[in-house]
Amino acid sequence: MVSVSEPEGPAAAGPVVGVDIGGTKTSAGLVDPSGGLLAVRTRPTPATRGAAEVVRTAAELVRELAELAVPGGAGAVTAVGVASAGVIDSGRGVVVSATGAIAGWAGTDLRGELSRELGLPVAVDNDVHAHLLGEQWRGAAAGRRDVLLVAAGTGIGASLLLGGRVRHGARSVAGHAGHLPVAAAAGRPCPCGGRGHVEAVAAGPALLAEYRRRTGAGVTHLAEVALLAEAGDSVAAIVLAEGASALGSAIGGLVNVIDPEIVVIGGGVAGCGAPWWDALREAVRAEVLPALCDIPVEPAVLGGDAALLGAARLVLEVET
Amino acid sequence: MVSVSEPEGPAAAGPVVGVDIGGTKTSAGLVDPSGGLLAVRTRPTPATRGAAEVVRTAAELVRELAELAVPGGAGAVTAVGVASAGVIDSGRGVVVSATGAIAGWAGTDLRGELSRELGLPVAVDNDVHAHLLGEQWRGAAAGRRDVLLVAAGTGIGASLLLGGRVRHGARSVAGHAGHLPVAAAAGRPCPCGGRGHVEAVAAGPALLAEYRRRTGAGVTHLAEVALLAEAGDSVAAIVLAEGASALGSAIGGLVNVIDPEIVVIGGGVAGCGAPWWDALREAVRAEVLPALCDIPVEPAVLGGDAALLGAARLVLEVET
Repeated sequence: MVSVSEPEGPAAAGPVVGVDIGGTKTSAGLVDPSGGLLAVRTRPTPATRGAAEVVRTAAELVRELAELAVPGGAGAVTAVGVASAGVIDSGRGVVVSATGAIAGWAGTDLRGELSRELGLPVAVDNDVHAHLLGEQWRGAAAGRRDVLLVAAGTGIGASLLLGGRVRHGARSVAGHAGHLPVAAAAGRPCPCGGRGHVEAVAAGPALLAEYRRRTGAGVTHLAEVALLAEAGDSVAAIVLAEGASALGSAIGGLVNVIDPEIVVIGGGVAGCGAPWWDALREAVRAEVLPALCDIPVEPAVLGGDAALLGAARLVLEVET
Repeated sequence: MVSVSEPEGPAAAGPVVGVDIGGTKTSAGLVDPSGGLLAVRTRPTPATRGAAEVVRTAAELVRELAELAVPGGAGAVTAVGVASAGVIDSGRGVVVSATGAIAGWAGTDLRGELSRELGLPVAVDNDVHAHLLGEQWRGAAAGRRDVLLVAAGTGIGASLLLGGRVRHGARSVAGHAGHLPVAAAAGRPCPCGGRGHVEAVAAGPALLAEYRRRTGAGVTHLAEVALLAEAGDSVAAIVLAEGASALGSAIGGLVNVIDPEIVVIGGGVAGCGAPWWDALREAVRAEVLPALCDIPVEPAVLGGDAALLGAARLVLEVET
């Protein structure tokens, strides 16, 4: 029995709702205390209409699920956990900073506004931390106390579970593994404003741009590059492998410092198939110290459900 | 009041002895519960004569200090904390693995052998972790709960205090920050057997070798290079700055993932003066996310006393 304590959130006994607020869509799931995802509702995030509207949309999804739980009444849902992109002060439940994906998101008192709106206890955390908590509850890292989860998509983020606790950091910024330097990214501008970070060569947009640059082909989605690689397009396979190798190098270095039990990789880029995974694992092995050479590097298994379960878990007393 | 708990060690009330066992010398210090270093004794480590002889030397130093504490009796010293190079299982007090610096050191049951020899409770940890615990007790990181300490010397090691606890890792390997990849080390062989790690370009031997390579000069100690830089030798200054820049880059990337309150740098290389420190701090600033740009990067202040105090602290219930 491994106990993972998240003391920031209130503990709830009944079914709860986990909410995942992204720049494009907002999802909510009704979750029972054993981690069963009973129902999911999704709507477009009204991202251009400001924070108040986004909070209202989240509240409506919670009410729909509460109604579903107890038709005609809303008494069954006991608490709400929320995952959001951006830097989240999970102790206060406030969005410290965020990209411009949701207008006016930075500064939002997400816990305060949503709990007033719903009359329920609310806990909030960053979406990558929620992803980790979900995978550690019912997914690829089940039962582990020391986990490095890397989410490779439009950006590259990470979350660390260390001795059973999520590492939030002194300024709630911990986990920005996309901003580790690697040789393959030397001099390349990174979305953060810096240079030479792994995100600049290993995130989805970087892989897509690199394939277009090398071939002149007008592909518009990374999934097409992955399909081309699977169909024998050697440039596609090489582009994916080079990006994966850069990411594996950064992950391997981090493993030398953190020494987790397992590395779990999620996000859209992790769906790029064998050329990507083979190169990633090879690069991790090349980087780690001999004592760490058997570190498992596994795919996340819960997809979008992970953040919903992890968000729900913020308000549940869970033993796994 | 910040409480730092180290539950692996027995808690002692009286004066204790901290021991630092290195490949060249073994030091022991008599430490009072408030962190006063009352006396220090040092001997050469009988490194070629095997683990039993090394343990015996450590025990003799402890007895000398106990005799000093209470002349004619040895009752005053209540426990012994030991810092050693190598990978230490601090829970069991055993040397898991080590370089060849001490013959037969790997596998030594340091806690068991020393506690039988002395009839006192003994706790053991890695020397870089002890260095951190010392600096966090009475040094540059006093009162901090989230600290990245980097020790830059013959090798490059680190220790992380996260939420008030030392990060040992799933296999007791955590802290090997010398084995983070950086662009400046691309392709360069590292003492670990890998390539491209920051230790390969930023540790003391790498800096000395690089200065000799560029100048043909027969300098034999890094301190000479530092003095040459101070005296206006531009090659010396550039070599130090390039090594510091590589290290700062690795540290900055790690800060993005860990988000500590402070970075503390110790070890002989940190004594290389302004050309080294200026380049180090500049590289850290260039690497970190905007939210982390004010991260303090400070020199360790306790020198060799840090590991003695940190070792003593393994067996003291300390609040700072």
